[in-house]
Amino acid sequence: MSLNSSKPITIFFTAILALFFTLAVSFSVDLNQSLTYLWPLPSQFTSGNDTLSVDPDLSLSLSGNGGRSRIVKEAFDRYKAIIFKQSSSRAAYVYIKNVFRGLRSGYDITKLSIIVNSDNEELQLGVDESYSLFVAKNNGQSIIGEATIEANTVFGALRGLETFSQLCSFDFETKSVQVYKAPWYIQDEPRFAFRGLMLGELNFSVAIEYTSRHYLPVDVIKEIIESMSYAKLNVFHWHILDEQSFPLEVPSYPKLWQGAYTKWERYTVDDASEIVSFAKMRGINVMAEVDVPGHAESWGAGYPDLWPSPTCKEPLDVAKNFTFEVISGILADMRKIFPFELFHLGGDEVNTDCWNSTPHVKQWLQDHNMTTKEAYQYFVLKAQEIAISKNWTPVNWEETFNTFATKLNPQTVVHNWLGPGVCPKAVAKGFKCIYSNQGVWYLDHLDVPWNNTYTAEPLEGIDEASQQELVIGGEVCMWGETADASNVQQTIWPRAAAAAERLWSRREAISTGNITLTALPRFHYFRCLLNRRGVQAAPVDNFYARQPPTGAGSCYVQ
Amino acid sequence: MSLNSSKPITIFFTAILALFFTLAVSFSVDLNQSLTYLWPLPSQFTSGNDTLSVDPDLSLSLSGNGGRSRIVKEAFDRYKAIIFKQSSSRAAYVYIKNVFRGLRSGYDITKLSIIVNSDNEELQLGVDESYSLFVAKNNGQSIIGEATIEANTVFGALRGLETFSQLCSFDFETKSVQVYKAPWYIQDEPRFAFRGLMLGELNFSVAIEYTSRHYLPVDVIKEIIESMSYAKLNVFHWHILDEQSFPLEVPSYPKLWQGAYTKWERYTVDDASEIVSFAKMRGINVMAEVDVPGHAESWGAGYPDLWPSPTCKEPLDVAKNFTFEVISGILADMRKIFPFELFHLGGDEVNTDCWNSTPHVKQWLQDHNMTTKEAYQYFVLKAQEIAISKNWTPVNWEETFNTFATKLNPQTVVHNWLGPGVCPKAVAKGFKCIYSNQGVWYLDHLDVPWNNTYTAEPLEGIDEASQQELVIGGEVCMWGETADASNVQQTIWPRAAAAAERLWSRREAISTGNITLTALPRFHYFRCLLNRRGVQAAPVDNFYARQPPTGAGSCYVQ
Repeated sequence: MSLNSSKPITIFFTAILALFFTLAVSFSVDLNQSLTYLWPLPSQFTSGNDTLSVDPDLSLSLSGNGGRSRIVKEAFDRYKAIIFKQSSSRAAYVYIKNVFRGLRSGYDITKLSIIVNSDNEELQLGVDESYSLFVAKNNGQSIIGEATIEANTVFGALRGLETFSQLCSFDFETKSVQVYKAPWYIQDEPRFAFRGLMLGELNFSVAIEYTSRHYLPVDVIKEIIESMSYAKLNVFHWHILDEQSFPLEVPSYPKLWQGAYTKWERYTVDDASEIVSFAKMRGINVMAEVDVPGHAESWGAGYPDLWPSPTCKEPLDVAKNFTFEVISGILADMRKIFPFELFHLGGDEVNTDCWNSTPHVKQWLQDHNMTTKEAYQYFVLKAQEIAISKNWTPVNWEETFNTFATKLNPQTVVHNWLGPGVCPKAVAKGFKCIYSNQGVWYLDHLDVPWNNTYTAEPLEGIDEASQQELVIGGEVCMWGETADASNVQQTIWPRAAAAAERLWSRREAISTGNITLTALPRFHYFRCLLNRRGVQAAPVDNFYARQPPTGAGSCYVQ
Repeated sequence: MSLNSSKPITIFFTAILALFFTLAVSFSVDLNQSLTYLWPLPSQFTSGNDTLSVDPDLSLSLSGNGGRSRIVKEAFDRYKAIIFKQSSSRAAYVYIKNVFRGLRSGYDITKLSIIVNSDNEELQLGVDESYSLFVAKNNGQSIIGEATIEANTVFGALRGLETFSQLCSFDFETKSVQVYKAPWYIQDEPRFAFRGLMLGELNFSVAIEYTSRHYLPVDVIKEIIESMSYAKLNVFHWHILDEQSFPLEVPSYPKLWQGAYTKWERYTVDDASEIVSFAKMRGINVMAEVDVPGHAESWGAGYPDLWPSPTCKEPLDVAKNFTFEVISGILADMRKIFPFELFHLGGDEVNTDCWNSTPHVKQWLQDHNMTTKEAYQYFVLKAQEIAISKNWTPVNWEETFNTFATKLNPQTVVHNWLGPGVCPKAVAKGFKCIYSNQGVWYLDHLDVPWNNTYTAEPLEGIDEASQQELVIGGEVCMWGETADASNVQQTIWPRAAAAAERLWSRREAISTGNITLTALPRFHYFRCLLNRRGVQAAPVDNFYARQPPTGAGSCYVQ
């Protein structure tokens, strides 16, 4: 699955780096200190005691085989806008130039060097996201300081830019951006290749009570993807079609999006492509989902033949070839939009009553000597075949594994959700697995406090290294019963960031000690960082997620 | 107070326009119709039955004395991005070109002409915001259609651009932006000159229970200002200093912002200037507030002499000259930032117990033969003198009027908030007035449904035209006890828009008929428009404001 991960990273500094597991321990919640918090915690780093100023006219020096990358150049511009949000005045320049230490440039850091070793910009599962970041005062030879990111791929460079941006903070006294605790030597790489956020409209397991779903405008989806990059998440799982709404344009079957709730609540092919392209610029893959056969009632709005009958509309009619022709057409059209090698075929929560109660389907079952359970298996495997024929690796929700594990295509990635203990079983049988235990990683469960999300461990119960490697990562899921464009970001954040650190950072580094001391202050800081960047991350400390602030206080302690 | 409003508008079409008061009546909540909703309702307009397509490469032709305006050019670019959010493909161009009516350009509207009569870009109270907008198919002489905005000032042109953007909607079938119900002839102007939104950190009237306040990052404030322009609001009332937090940099008294909650939760002079400039580009004035003497405890963090004593910190020490020197210094520094002619001096909720219980203040009162009530008056009038000396028109909360109306400087603008009936009294005494009755226009009152906000009438109880003219407008107030960066927009919207239509549109047009038919569908539509533009406007129909959606449904019916 990995295109670049086998290449050894060339590290431009060779000192052995001490591991610091307790960055935050030395920080107090006394916010008058100079703190430099990073989220998620890098795998290896050292810091010092210097304070360096950063030039608002910071320039980019991009080199290496990937030295002409538009992805890195645009990211540099984005991060520059973030870093220098609050400093614009030339007065600050003059002030520092005159008053400070007489540096020729007026600032310690005037240039960010980024070295990208490869010009391969294909973004796939397991792409090399490692990077080294070095920020220091002059080394005695040059008169100015140095900030350098080295990475094997442009995507590693993006992660390094995010870390660099978090090292920079605006100092209101000197009116300049400062890097505290320099020199910084950071060598970083993700623990898991798959670090996802799912966005879906309906959580059917509670649909009896809520049965709500909400269209999210393209701009809102882009904002979510942008914010994911701040936490170094790298897979946007787009549960684009569901039970009651089919918003996506499918040119092969143009009547399908008649299943959209209104004619304004739709996505064109261009919209979807734009989202994929926007995500790639941020090093984020888009994994689309077509959830069959259970969650597909909306398909019949345009093509009623897909329903077993007009009065019994779900699951999709297993007895008709047309059903699989449409699936094949949808997947063919979507293949042009979604280059990611993983494609999600759903397969969850299939209630086969309609198949039994609809005469022509019942007849078909008898003709084929199938039980409804066997027909469910038949449907899922046929959908897998279609996806595989289009060069996709199929992902299925765990019900498929729980029901007919031995029949699943061995390529299948099992997507856990119902509870703990599924990934251990899946990897024991040789399947890859994605961890999304709903008890801790379903963001629509508003009563899950941040620390439960944080301490959830995808490898729990898996001891053998060969099996651990089959857990490709995890995903937090944002089902939209009670979330729409007005509140989806405050439902996602900050808890998604708790999972993001779990998925990125070294297990030992974030699993020992008292997280109230080691993680919580950094978590507060990161939620305020999101707020500063315009992301509506909710207060950390409320008992229920996404509640308004209840008492007095700074962002940094709420 | 008006710089431009006396100029008669030159109307480029001379037909007598019929008044349509019931735009929305003909629209059903059936969302499958082609609707064209406008919010706020223009003062005069006619529409037809044509559907026109708009070129994604829409060009701007800007002429008149204001023809070189950067304000209009940048606004055109912003609105173009909004209008064409969802259409990017050239395929749509080809499709329409081939299939449709064989227009040479492929689209009906390829150019937007904007004529701005004046090159005066000063933005003050009463600036001419009127505009005419004409969108039609070709008139028989030219082969293509026409879209023209004419305005006396650039700010009128901005309002016309907003209306034009609301006429444009993306049609997912043809993949093009369409204007339905053309030809449109719109002649529009605001009913009130002052249409405000206040953003403040603390509502002291409930502070006993909550005592909370929250710093909002600069980006969040900009997003709020941007969203105000969508509803044609034009005054951002920035209650920047309060009880517990002094986030603003004051160069003359640099220790003042030590009263900020943390060193990161501050605004530099540059930040404030940037906000003023950002607002002006959108035709929005920024009215700053320095709330004295009651809401100023935070000032003493840097200068404890401003407190009567270290144990009794509020109101500001009336007995010291230093107090008024600091006020004068703050206002002198703020004058360089805030060009708007109105400046808010607060004056509300003054509890003078500290003055009575602090020996040196008590002595001063005796020496000057003053009661504490007289000292309160002395303080407010002295602050007014300072503001007036800096060429500002003072605004004060209604307590000052309620307590010593006859002593107030006759220039004073009385800012109502405690309840109904105050503006009638104020204008009867010759004062100007701003309406903000907390029972209907305080957005932090979450139990006020949209229709109560909508039907609140600033001129209620004022019958004489000469007195009505003294009501310069109204303002919705967003006090931040339970609102921070995570939820402030969903607390403001959509209800602020209900007040915005009250303040913009003709009273007769929006005060008759059944608003459930005439206004509610347009209100739903406008909230979804805000969502599409990335504004977290909450569902309309919840009993409490800013609650999550509770049931199934499209944005357009929630």
